Amino acid sequence: MDAPQSPSFQIPAVCQAGVVVDEGPNFQVRVETVPVPEPGPDDILIRLNVTGICSSDIHMMQNDLGTPKMSSFGVRSPGHEGAGIVVKVGANVTNFKLGDRAGVKPLMDTCGNCDLCWGDSETYCRAGVHTGLMTAGQCSSSREETPLTELPGTYQQYIVSPAKYASPIPDGVPDEIAAPIMCSASTVYCSLVESKLKAGDWAVFPGGGGGVGIQGVQLAKAMGMRPIVVDTGAAKRDLSMEMGAEAFIDFRETSDTSAAAIEVADGVGAHGVFVTAPAAYKTAASFIGNRIGAVIMCIGLAPANTMVVGEDPNTFIFKKLSVKGTLVGSRKDTAAALDFARRGLLKQICEVYPLHRLPKAVDRLRTGQVAGRIVVDFNLTE
Amino acid sequence: MDAPQSPSFQIPAVCQAGVVVDEGPNFQVRVETVPVPEPGPDDILIRLNVTGICSSDIHMMQNDLGTPKMSSFGVRSPGHEGAGIVVKVGANVTNFKLGDRAGVKPLMDTCGNCDLCWGDSETYCRAGVHTGLMTAGQCSSSREETPLTELPGTYQQYIVSPAKYASPIPDGVPDEIAAPIMCSASTVYCSLVESKLKAGDWAVFPGGGGGVGIQGVQLAKAMGMRPIVVDTGAAKRDLSMEMGAEAFIDFRETSDTSAAAIEVADGVGAHGVFVTAPAAYKTAASFIGNRIGAVIMCIGLAPANTMVVGEDPNTFIFKKLSVKGTLVGSRKDTAAALDFARRGLLKQICEVYPLHRLPKAVDRLRTGQVAGRIVVDFNLTE
Amino acid sequence: MDAPQSPSFQIPAVCQAGVVVDEGPNFQVRVETVPVPEPGPDDILIRLNVTGICSSDIHMMQNDLGTPKMSSFGVRSPGHEGAGIVVKVGANVTNFKLGDRAGVKPLMDTCGNCDLCWGDSETYCRAGVHTGLMTAGQCSSSREETPLTELPGTYQQYIVSPAKYASPIPDGVPDEIAAPIMCSASTVYCSLVESKLKAGDWAVFPGGGGGVGIQGVQLAKAMGMRPIVVDTGAAKRDLSMEMGAEAFIDFRETSDTSAAAIEVADGVGAHGVFVTAPAAYKTAASFIGNRIGAVIMCIGLAPANTMVVGEDPNTFIFKKLSVKGTLVGSRKDTAAALDFARRGLLKQICEVYPLHRLPKAVDRLRTGQVAGRIVVDFNLTE
Amino acid sequence: MDAPQSPSFQIPAVCQAGVVVDEGPNFQVRVETVPVPEPGPDDILIRLNVTGICSSDIHMMQNDLGTPKMSSFGVRSPGHEGAGIVVKVGANVTNFKLGDRAGVKPLMDTCGNCDLCWGDSETYCRAGVHTGLMTAGQCSSSREETPLTELPGTYQQYIVSPAKYASPIPDGVPDEIAAPIMCSASTVYCSLVESKLKAGDWAVFPGGGGGVGIQGVQLAKAMGMRPIVVDTGAAKRDLSMEMGAEAFIDFRETSDTSAAAIEVADGVGAHGVFVTAPAAYKTAASFIGNRIGAVIMCIGLAPANTMVVGEDPNTFIFKKLSVKGTLVGSRKDTAAALDFARRGLLKQICEVYPLHRLPKAVDRLRTGQVAGRIVVDFNLTE
Repeated sequence: MDAPQSPSFQIPAVCQAGVVVDEGPNFQVRVETVPVPEPGPDDILIRLNVTGICSSDIHMMQNDLGTPKMSSFGVRSPGHEGAGIVVKVGANVTNFKLGDRAGVKPLMDTCGNCDLCWGDSETYCRAGVHTGLMTAGQCSSSREETPLTELPGTYQQYIVSPAKYASPIPDGVPDEIAAPIMCSASTVYCSLVESKLKAGDWAVFPGGGGGVGIQGVQLAKAMGMRPIVVDTGAAKRDLSMEMGAEAFIDFRETSDTSAAAIEVADGVGAHGVFVTAPAAYKTAASFIGNRIGAVIMCIGLAPANTMVVGEDPNTFIFKKLSVKGTLVGSRKDTAAALDFARRGLLKQICEVYPLHRLPKAVDRLRTGQVAGRIVVDFNLTE
Repeated sequence: MDAPQSPSFQIPAVCQAGVVVDEGPNFQVRVETVPVPEPGPDDILIRLNVTGICSSDIHMMQNDLGTPKMSSFGVRSPGHEGAGIVVKVGANVTNFKLGDRAGVKPLMDTCGNCDLCWGDSETYCRAGVHTGLMTAGQCSSSREETPLTELPGTYQQYIVSPAKYASPIPDGVPDEIAAPIMCSASTVYCSLVESKLKAGDWAVFPGGGGGVGIQGVQLAKAMGMRPIVVDTGAAKRDLSMEMGAEAFIDFRETSDTSAAAIEVADGVGAHGVFVTAPAAYKTAASFIGNRIGAVIMCIGLAPANTMVVGEDPNTFIFKKLSVKGTLVGSRKDTAAALDFARRGLLKQICEVYPLHRLPKAVDRLRTGQVAGRIVVDFNLTE
Repeated sequence: MDAPQSPSFQIPAVCQAGVVVDEGPNFQVRVETVPVPEPGPDDILIRLNVTGICSSDIHMMQNDLGTPKMSSFGVRSPGHEGAGIVVKVGANVTNFKLGDRAGVKPLMDTCGNCDLCWGDSETYCRAGVHTGLMTAGQCSSSREETPLTELPGTYQQYIVSPAKYASPIPDGVPDEIAAPIMCSASTVYCSLVESKLKAGDWAVFPGGGGGVGIQGVQLAKAMGMRPIVVDTGAAKRDLSMEMGAEAFIDFRETSDTSAAAIEVADGVGAHGVFVTAPAAYKTAASFIGNRIGAVIMCIGLAPANTMVVGEDPNTFIFKKLSVKGTLVGSRKDTAAALDFARRGLLKQICEVYPLHRLPKAVDRLRTGQVAGRIVVDFNLTE
Repeated sequence: MDAPQSPSFQIPAVCQAGVVVDEGPNFQVRVETVPVPEPGPDDILIRLNVTGICSSDIHMMQNDLGTPKMSSFGVRSPGHEGAGIVVKVGANVTNFKLGDRAGVKPLMDTCGNCDLCWGDSETYCRAGVHTGLMTAGQCSSSREETPLTELPGTYQQYIVSPAKYASPIPDGVPDEIAAPIMCSASTVYCSLVESKLKAGDWAVFPGGGGGVGIQGVQLAKAMGMRPIVVDTGAAKRDLSMEMGAEAFIDFRETSDTSAAAIEVADGVGAHGVFVTAPAAYKTAASFIGNRIGAVIMCIGLAPANTMVVGEDPNTFIFKKLSVKGTLVGSRKDTAAALDFARRGLLKQICEVYPLHRLPKAVDRLRTGQVAGRIVVDFNLTE
């Protein structure tokens, strides 16, 4: 068989990027022209079509998580969920070729050599490189000969990724769906798997009508679980029910939200509670009712001193209760979430913005005006 | 082969029992003469050789757990870990015969018909009968035709048990070892299994030099784990090391107990922390250090408002941490713990008292003077 | 609250039953009048509305499985999947009351006291009583005082069952669906669970268009798996696709069935193969292609000397292949399968016959004329 | 802190290697002088102290496994279990430094990018490079710029390995123990883990007194299982019992070996059978007796047409039996096995030869004269 003509790409010297200015409480986002980076021998250069905008981006630009400033790593562009096309491949790369679709995740690289990488905990690799936050200097992977000068996030259209950690995107998954999968859907999928819930079990999603939760609802449904969403408003109700929830409990219209959820869950209680929003940690345990062996999954990062469960050990003992945390999804989790999307079982409800309106998009997210997910399409002009 | 001559037993009309007087903060224990109960058609009558004395007995007699008084159930004798011999069998009983050895556990019966009994959660059966606490009226099992007038605990020498829930005791396990297995060892074994720790993993036992913890240490060792005991004093150090601990950290002699435990655990931290004593809940999380995927197991009941972990959800998320509770051991757990004892891998360090000194024994336990476990041998006269 | 008026039932002295005559290759089935049995104190009397007719009934009446004759146990009525209503309860029974719906399974009782019953293997209890095959004499449960004279199968309208092992039938599941769930759906569900396949995995059902397989297809779908049916004919194709198969491969129209199945399964191969029909054992391994870690589940009993896989150990080693067997479903499996039916995720395609046409129904099954499942409704007159 | 002075090594231009001549039934082994290979930027150069000699080496040199000839890949030195010291590191390497100890396994590299590598199946990577068998051309990893001209096995003293796939060897494990762990102990450990046997379960090792089996016995013991060895001779009996077997059954002195093993295993049967030698596949199933839920693990490669179990599906169904295969150990398995060795729980009984006597050593193994394991120490002169 003749090899198909390999596509060739014109790589510009510069590209557009959303960058943060005045990192801190009054940060601003601007679109600037930046150099297109050069991939090392083990890297690929991706021309992103879409980047998601995630609440954690806001936190990172506000620098309110207690972590070092992005600028202290020399990084100006945040963003950690991107989908695009491979336009250049390093000399050693064999798992991507020109024209392939590729995605960038919150974790841009791991060492691949430690016991966490060997096992099922690669996302906890102590040498992991966090996209849009750290430079190559923080990366312990083998880069000494070909250091990257920086590792910007997915707000920048042309971005370099180690080939081994980029995620192939299957045909049939549009970029505006694939991008948010890199972070939120993959993360929720990881939590659903680790919860060990089985088909037929009740899964409560407090705040499940939101951008992250609604992906959990769809994945839970696809895995045979029975999702219950606790949120508010007709729009979220409609969306939740359409996406597979078996019940929606409006916390503004229900006097006892927990009792209502327990009533739905066979009158016994939820098998699992998936907490994506900090505010829900306080009440998460109330949804398990008298269910024996239930699990509360911690997904959403929370302000310091947010108590999980807020109960004494006797509750754990008398109910065989577990509380468990999971971080972001691994390459395997991401591939699995993409596959559910490919099969049409995972959809996105997104607002789509052109790059020049990124500042506006960030502002809408910062001020809590976004229903669902918000993404930037680098190819849109208006 | 000729069937062996079945033994026959003289059943007295009355027997001795330790009973509680003045249930409450100033309770007293007396030895009284009580009627020997009559087994129903599905029951066995056991002549106990040994009963353990457990801290929960003290709590029940002090009535400081917030539960109803024993006397409100018509029960005067506490005790929930007994080992003896079957001296009478009900007409329908096929799984025990005269002369067999049998043990009584904290749970005296379960319904056998609910989804919890069907699954792996029989000890959470909502119709479970708690030994030494509840009467037949509380038992939902099929007893209408042959109600027991009461279900006393193992402080009474002759005790009735549903045949299906009594535990056979294998040859080679002395009664003074078998009795405490019914409660404490079985419970710890259940927790070790549910922790999912594997051979080679580090298991920290805060207070592990005590009566319950030291059984956990031995079982953990027998399962291939590596126990670390955090406790104090030369006696507990010697006992812990002899019973299989790989390290003993004396919290009175160590400035930073957690750091010392983490140092032993490969410099990373424990894979599991097994909390048998309420005081240890506060510091349990400190032993996991930077271990990813560790688990904190809640075993010991604690005063209300004792916080587990006392950390925010981010700790769970960044460390893939789990906290999980387990109650008492099931029939299967008890059989497994007895088998480890039969193989010599689970020993007891007990003080043994005659029944007439039960009040003294209880007093010693109440005032914290007991090292290891304390049991009463009904056959001792002095 | 006032207790609702308990229903009362007129119990006739005799009832109708399908009985086998001339057990062996030329067996015949007749409808006879037999005495209504009397429940013991731990039993319930069920008036069946429906009995399924299973291929194993044919084998038992033909006595071609190498087991003792039914008549050697004094049993004349086969049948092991029945659904009806409780019309009398023994004195000790607390988990069923008059008028409750109840089902009878292939296993009518287990001892409840052995390590298999304690664990997750109750259906392997060495003292288990097989419905429609064994008499009380074979049952080691506590029956000495109230022996049943026989334990006929579900071809007899009034049937006694130990209360603890009968399955409650939830509202919303018609008897003609509930009856076959007792055997086939419950058994397939057990196999699906034990296969450890997860949502998104490919499950091949050779012969999956038939009565048992089609229940597996629906349950696999409900658990998030992706069923592929290998069978033949337009009727089975339509049924399979309607019930949730993602592909149907007609082995009469496909030159290389395995290649076709592998092609569907991502071009790699099935994650699991569920063998319900003896003929499929020979080719089961071909469907796994190059899938690593696949499992072949043995469900259908087969003539002696039917080889599983028929391959050398190297295949197991190079593909991380497993072959695993499971027997009938437990009480928990049955409850789970019934719950899927209640939710509308498990349907039956049955031919329904009145009792007087049972001989005809058996004959149709014996001569391979039945598509789907065949049941007898005891209440039908025509 | 001052960095410690890095050791420096004189790398010779040539080194000694055992090479195969006349590959086939009459192969011979010679010691020749070969060039020392040059590591690429992601590689390390290891100066081996010890190589194990494995039966598979014999098969490969005899070319009787149906695989292509080594010479067809340009490889002349077999061997796939080596332990030594890092004497040169590629420019990109960060996980090894000069002077570190490192081991080489049967799998020299995997792609790291496929779903098998992402999951828990890296050893099944379709692009895996098999040590001592394949050249760089067969390796799909990123090597285009720095191709190795060949990938010889561990019979050659200086050997190149991709840094990411070499195994660090902890202090306290001598090289003659570490080398065979790379293949046999790691492989057996993997099988023990995948068997899901738990502490207290009976594990039968047919041929367990041999080189591979005896490592399984020690590891099973360390994991809390109860090993039974079926083999022959006083030497193997003594070794087995010393290494942790609870029983040794001499098949030359026992009329019914299976019955004897079942008798030991509580009179019920083994929970697991670990088959390392082809001859044992035929009888493996006999050891499980009436154990429900047992597993037969396939480890040793066998001549074509060796049947596993050799039973019909009914055996699987009635006993809940599983048969499962596993290949070589992963990096994680190897690290775990090395850790058991470091703790003194895994020892080796080896004959140690100098390199110039390698032909003699191979000959002894080929003619079945070796008890235990045989290794070559490159530093020995006599």
